Order: sequence, then C-alpha cells, then structure tokens
Amino acid sequence: MSRFLVFIFFLIGLFAHCNSLDYNVGTYTQVVDHFNWDINLTFEQRYLYSDVYWDNGPFVVYTGNEGDVEGFWSSAGFTFEIAKELSGYILFIEHRYYGKSLPFGTESFDHDKIGYLSIEQAIADYALVIQHIKAKLGATDNPVIALGGSYGGMLSAYFRFKYPNVVDAALAASAPIYLAAGLANNHSFWEVVTADFQAAQEECPTRVRSAFTELQKLRDSGAAGLQEISKKFRLCKVLESAQQVDHLIGWIRNAFAMMCMGDYPYASSFFGKLPANPVNVTADLIMGADDALEGLVLGTGLFYNGTSNDTLSCFDPFTEYISCSDPTGCGLGPNSLAWDYQACTELYLASGTNNVTDMFAPLAWTLEMRDAYCQKTWGVTQRPGWFATSLWGNSISSASNIIFSNGALDPWKEGGVPKSLSDTLVALLIDGAAHHLDLRSSNPKDPPAVVAARKTELVLLKKWISHKTSENE
Amino acid sequence: MSRFLVFIFFLIGLFAHCNSLDYNVGTYTQVVDHFNWDINLTFEQRYLYSDVYWDNGPFVVYTGNEGDVEGFWSSAGFTFEIAKELSGYILFIEHRYYGKSLPFGTESFDHDKIGYLSIEQAIADYALVIQHIKAKLGATDNPVIALGGSYGGMLSAYFRFKYPNVVDAALAASAPIYLAAGLANNHSFWEVVTADFQAAQEECPTRVRSAFTELQKLRDSGAAGLQEISKKFRLCKVLESAQQVDHLIGWIRNAFAMMCMGDYPYASSFFGKLPANPVNVTADLIMGADDALEGLVLGTGLFYNGTSNDTLSCFDPFTEYISCSDPTGCGLGPNSLAWDYQACTELYLASGTNNVTDMFAPLAWTLEMRDAYCQKTWGVTQRPGWFATSLWGNSISSASNIIFSNGALDPWKEGGVPKSLSDTLVALLIDGAAHHLDLRSSNPKDPPAVVAARKTELVLLKKWISHKTSENE
Repeated sequence: MSRFLVFIFFLIGLFAHCNSLDYNVGTYTQVVDHFNWDINLTFEQRYLYSDVYWDNGPFVVYTGNEGDVEGFWSSAGFTFEIAKELSGYILFIEHRYYGKSLPFGTESFDHDKIGYLSIEQAIADYALVIQHIKAKLGATDNPVIALGGSYGGMLSAYFRFKYPNVVDAALAASAPIYLAAGLANNHSFWEVVTADFQAAQEECPTRVRSAFTELQKLRDSGAAGLQEISKKFRLCKVLESAQQVDHLIGWIRNAFAMMCMGDYPYASSFFGKLPANPVNVTADLIMGADDALEGLVLGTGLFYNGTSNDTLSCFDPFTEYISCSDPTGCGLGPNSLAWDYQACTELYLASGTNNVTDMFAPLAWTLEMRDAYCQKTWGVTQRPGWFATSLWGNSISSASNIIFSNGALDPWKEGGVPKSLSDTLVALLIDGAAHHLDLRSSNPKDPPAVVAARKTELVLLKKWISHKTSENE
Repeated sequence: MSRFLVFIFFLIGLFAHCNSLDYNVGTYTQVVDHFNWDINLTFEQRYLYSDVYWDNGPFVVYTGNEGDVEGFWSSAGFTFEIAKELSGYILFIEHRYYGKSLPFGTESFDHDKIGYLSIEQAIADYALVIQHIKAKLGATDNPVIALGGSYGGMLSAYFRFKYPNVVDAALAASAPIYLAAGLANNHSFWEVVTADFQAAQEECPTRVRSAFTELQKLRDSGAAGLQEISKKFRLCKVLESAQQVDHLIGWIRNAFAMMCMGDYPYASSFFGKLPANPVNVTADLIMGADDALEGLVLGTGLFYNGTSNDTLSCFDPFTEYISCSDPTGCGLGPNSLAWDYQACTELYLASGTNNVTDMFAPLAWTLEMRDAYCQKTWGVTQRPGWFATSLWGNSISSASNIIFSNGALDPWKEGGVPKSLSDTLVALLIDGAAHHLDLRSSNPKDPPAVVAARKTELVLLKKWISHKTSENE
C-alpha cells in the first residue's frame, strides 16, 4: 500500500467520521452517590444535544459509554436519522468517569474516589439528566428512546430494565449482555476474530498461527531472539524480556480485534484509522507477505498506522497498547483507567487466547489472574454473581421494547441476545456488519442487511413509543 | 371496660398473635454497599425460614420492613397458607438497619454509618439472600413469590420492579407507593382516619374536634391549663410548655392512627395491644364519656393501655411516642431511628393535620419543616424527584405480576395503586379490612371480602409462577 493510498484512506476516514450535525454542550449538576444521602457530593456531567429536528417528538438519547462523548456523537449518526424521522430531540450523555465528566477531576481515579464508578450509578445519572432536560423544555410527557453501541448498548438495555418509567424503548446495538454477566462462551470473541480472517482468506489463520509459532520460538531463544523480534516489528526500543514479548503479543492481538470490530465497508476512524474492509485488507497483506511473521508485522502495522510505507518511523507497543483487566484492550489515557476499573468490578469480558480455538499465541487470562491483577491494581475483587443479579443476566424475558442488534462479523456477537424473546424483545443479526454498524450514519456502501435492519429498528421504536406519542399530541 | 375484659382481650390478642409455625434463624454475610467496590464491608443479615411445607415448590418470601423480622413472622400468617398450598419454602428476610441486621452494630445509626440505609440497598440484599438460599438447596430454578405489608409491600413491588430476574410475582399489601413518591394526596391519611371514626359513630369526629378545641384552649391558658391537661390525661409528669402539649397532640393522634391501621375484627397486638374492632370500641368510649375531652382521654388511653381501668397508673407521652420525620409515627427504640432516617431521605409520607379535612388539632408538617428537621437531625435532605425516578413513581405500567391490595378502612389506602393497570398488575380494594389484613392468618372473624381477596391472590400468584413451575417439574 502506497503512502498516497493511506492518505486517501485517511481523507475518506475523516469524511465518513465527520458529522455534519453540530452539537451544543451542556452540563448537569449530578449526584455522586445516588444511593447514599450522607455522601453529599455533586459533579458536573457533560452532555451534547441538538434540537435541530425537534418538533415535540421523542427524546433520542445516546447512553454514553467508555469514552469521551464527542466520539459517540461522531460515530452514531443513525441517532440523528431517527431524530429527523421522529422530530426528536438529540441528546448524548457522557458516562461518569469518562471524558470531561470526572466526579473528582484529575483525582477521580484515586482509590478512594473511583468507587462511585458503577453501572448502577451511571444509569441513574442518565435518568436524572433526561428528566432535567425534559422539565426544562416543558416536555415531561414526551417519550424517550435510548440507544447505544457495545457497552453503550448494554447501558441502553439496562436503563430500560431498571428505569422503564424514564425510557420507553431502547436500541441496544452489539451489546454483549450475556457475556458480560458471565453467561456466554467467553472464548467466542477470539473465535469470531479468527473466523472473520478465515472468511477473508481461507488460509489466513493458518499463516497467522505459523507467525505466532515463530514469534514464540524467537521469544524463547534469548537476547538474539528479542533483537530479531524488535527489528522485525520495527520497534523503537529493543524488547528486553520474554514478558515484554507477551505484551507485544497483546499489542498484536489488539490490532486484530480492533480491525474486526471496525470492519466497516468504508474507511472509518472509530477504532483507530482504518481503511474500508480492514479485515480483507489485512488478510491480503498477511497472505501477500514474503513470510508469515512479516505478514503479522504488516497486518499489525496497518492498525497502528506504521507499516514501512506509513507515517510512523517505529512502533512503541508500550504506549500504543496498555494491557489491563480487559483482554480486548482498555484503550489509552484516563478513559482506560475507568474501563480497567469497570472490568475489575462489574464486567465479565473475553477470555485470553489459547491457539486452539483461535489463531493467536496462547496468552492466558483466567478469572484467578484477573482477580489477582484487580486486587493489586485497584484493591478490588469482583463479587461473583452480582452482575447477573443486578442487571438480570439472561433472565430478561420480563423486559420489553428493546432491540438487540448484532453484526454477523462482530467478535462480540455471541455474547449478545441471540434470538427474539417476544414481540417487544427483538434480536436482529445483521449480515455483513461489524460492531454496531447499524448505529452509524447511512452510507452508500452499507450492506443491504444493515439498511434493512435500520428500517426495522425505526419501525419498532416508532411503534413502541406510539402510545405515549399519541397521548402527548 | 373492666379490667377483666381487658385481660380477655389480651389473651385473645396473644392467641391471634401467636403463630403456630416455628421458625429457624439464619444469617447471610451481606455486602454493605452493593454499588461501590471500594467499600469492602459486610454484615450479618438475619432471616427466618421454615421448610415444613416445602416440596420443591416456590420460595415464598416476606420482604421485611421497618422492624424486627420476628414481628412480621408473627403477623403475616397468610404467607404460611400460601406456602402450604404451593408446597413452598417460607423465608422472611430482615431489612438492613432493623432488628438484629445492623451493619455496624450499635454504631449503625452514627451519621457516618447510616448512609448505607436505602431502599436500593435493601432490595439488593433480598436478591442476594434468596439466591444464596436457593443455591444452597439446589433450587435455583424454583419460582419466587415476594410479599409484604405496608412499607414491606412497597418493597415487594420495588423488588419485582427492579429484580424480575429474581422474583416472579409479588403481593404488595397496603403499599402506598404513589404517596411515598409524592404523587398522592398526603392529607388523605388523616382524612381516612376521620372517616373511619365517623363510620363507627357519625358524631364522633365532631366530638373529637370539640375535645381538641378545649385542649388547645387549655394549652394557651398558661400554667393552670397545663396542669389541667396533665391531670385530665393522667400524665406521670406535669407538662411544662405549650410545645409539650403539641407533643401530647402527636401522641394522641398516633393512638388514633394505630387504631385505624389495626382495626381488625379480632383482638391483635401488631399495632399495640388492641381489642377487636378498636375503632368501634374507641368511638363508643368517646361518645359515652361525660365530656368531649374525657372521651379523647379514654380513646387515647385504650391504645396506650392506661385508661383508668387499665394497668398503667399514669402515661408518659415522651417515652410512649417519639415525634420524628414521619407524622404517623416512627415507633420506639433503635428501629425508630432507622425509620426516621428513611423518612428523611427517600420516603415522602403523610402530611400533618389541619382540623379542616381531619378531626385533629392542627399540627403542621410541611416539606420545609421536614427538611429543616432532617438537616438538623441527620444532616441530610431529600432529593426532590429521586424517589419517583428510582422507584418508578406512578409510571409502573411496564411492570407485571404484582397484586396491590388495599383495605377500605386503611388510612394508607389512597396512597396505593387504586385500580388494575393490566391483567398482571391487579389492584384489589378489600371491604371491611384495615392495614394489610389480607396478609394475616385466616380467622373465623374475617370479613367475607378478605376471604375472597386471599383466594384471588392465591389464584393469581399461582398463575404467574405456573410457567416457571411447569418448567421446573
């Protein structure tokens, strides 16, 4: 791939990413601990909004997940399409402890201050922000639609579970609620990543496997091996230990995970700067390389924007990837701290890799390892069973008015709700779609299945709020 | 009423109170703060249970309210009748901060330790205790019925709202959920008390009003008046100020409230030691007395067990009644502290009296007075709207499998759900019944309406758990 091509991809990425809708920024003085009156603290919670389409329709609310809320505004354009169709008010609420919604500013991640980070607190926040804005607009009876992708989709569902008095319908896109409750096969994430690359190029996983075998051999062959690996992967600094090679393996694996999640039919920048169909592009790179290890280097480099033809002159796996309690990655910066804490307390996430059911080098991540890490890092341990109790696990049949959509290419898909449970708990599996593609703005390159899914989603949401809408007219 | 009669009432009371079913006591190591992983504390939560009827049927769970759990075991015998009918396991869980379930022992009511007392924490407790016991018995798939009376009934409903994954059906008896959310007429409590006495004796409220007028006149006439009041009411100690007379008025009012709540057709001891039909008995005493004020003395005395014919030689309104944030009374002892805190933080309760819509002396209790009291006493202030947001207010139509029963004589009835909202949200108004009479053991003196209500309740509960039961067989 030439430097020119990468530049073009970059421009397309920017365009696809670019959202034509401007937002306003608001803040709400939020309660730090909703469940304890002796903690008499508040913080400023950020939200983005637009009333450009609003004509007394529903509130269309993105339940912000683990990141700056602007990132979701830029990548969940279907929200605007729903709002336009329903004359709705657009609201994106930032999740506490992410972005600028830090209850204790830069001290928020101190051990004695991070404890107010929980899903139960976060969805209570959403309820209060929504009610505040509705009251301000004199629209207390207008219906509310919640939507979100990934963890944000989980939050939309949980929000409807726990506050159906506030939210009338939800679109939970690519929301692995069963997995997060420890009730799904947690190897499936890496199995689907492997299958996606196999679907792109039948022999790709075999080649990746050989590359990892070679990498492990080098890892176990002393200083010369470490030097060889460092050179091969164009690292800025030579690796110093076998342990550091394991970090490198995590860094590689993270690139593959991100490319599968962001395997959209057009260039995008949500999961890093990716070309259209990054899995195909990467599989081609891997299969076209002179040897297996070089293939792995090129594939990984595509994601970290530093193949030999790209802008970075060398890679630093230690700043580009932070290993944490989530084996699929915690991201970078302060947001990664919050996510690390959440994966240590409530969320049950993917397993490590084993090279048996997946194509990656074995990199174990057992519950014991997680608990040891979390105790050491945060002084906390997950309470077995709490998450499935608090947020319903897979006993969700009494809920209503929720769409659980999943993309057939998405590594998270097997952690979600696989089939409809009733007329008002509807599962959609979207062919040719990666992680919450349906939430993104409509695009000429969209596969037909996502076009159809968005139509279905709109019909259902409209129907589920219709009772309230007609009362309100 | 002769001393002999009182003794007979006392024996009948004991008998009606006495529960033929023995219980076992268990404790569960409970999490102090379910929503904060940095608070790494636990406490021993008490529960009572019996498997005498159990044959792999449902768990029939009383969601304990503001008192020692044994008190509910003794007064909610219908629980046992349900369990017997359905081969169920009987479980009564004590509410945190009540009885022996004190998270910090005798320090539990310290300002820095009482903050973990909230409804959200309490229903999370119930979920975990139930799951623990089910797991221990290898009965994780058996259905669960929750039931409770008054605040315990509210908890049953909230428990089903928030944890339908744990509880399949609920009987919320005399549960003023709309009132507690600030969404009902909060004068209605005293209005119904007044109406109950009027129904017993048409002229009774008029006579009570004159008595209060006289009492106020004496209150406002200096030392001689205070002496006169103290003598009239057989007080152990002479009142020293007009303020103390206001406390006396609260003490009197409390007696009337309790007698209306406990206006059962047989002697009982749940709301103090009461004869059968205490409202009729009291109305007769009032109307038969030589003058209005003496009527008030006799009526009040009946409740505090100290009329001239009874065992107490004098009354002490300051130990027999504690004025607190709940104008209908907080009870006595440490449990009253916990309830005071709850009425200061989450619960919105009855108003004061005004002598316009009720028969009592005006004794104001505004939200401003409440907030000032709560700030002074506990350093807390209710957050307007939180309760209705967290626990759904009157937007409950998405819930299912809940019976809201109310007694037509019960002062709380107008704070509850007045009519059925669907086939699975059923309201029952029970003629001739006081506060959660339906939860009590069947009794030959029961009015026909409560016999019919219990039948309906059993049919509905059985139906709502039938799906799970048949799966389990």
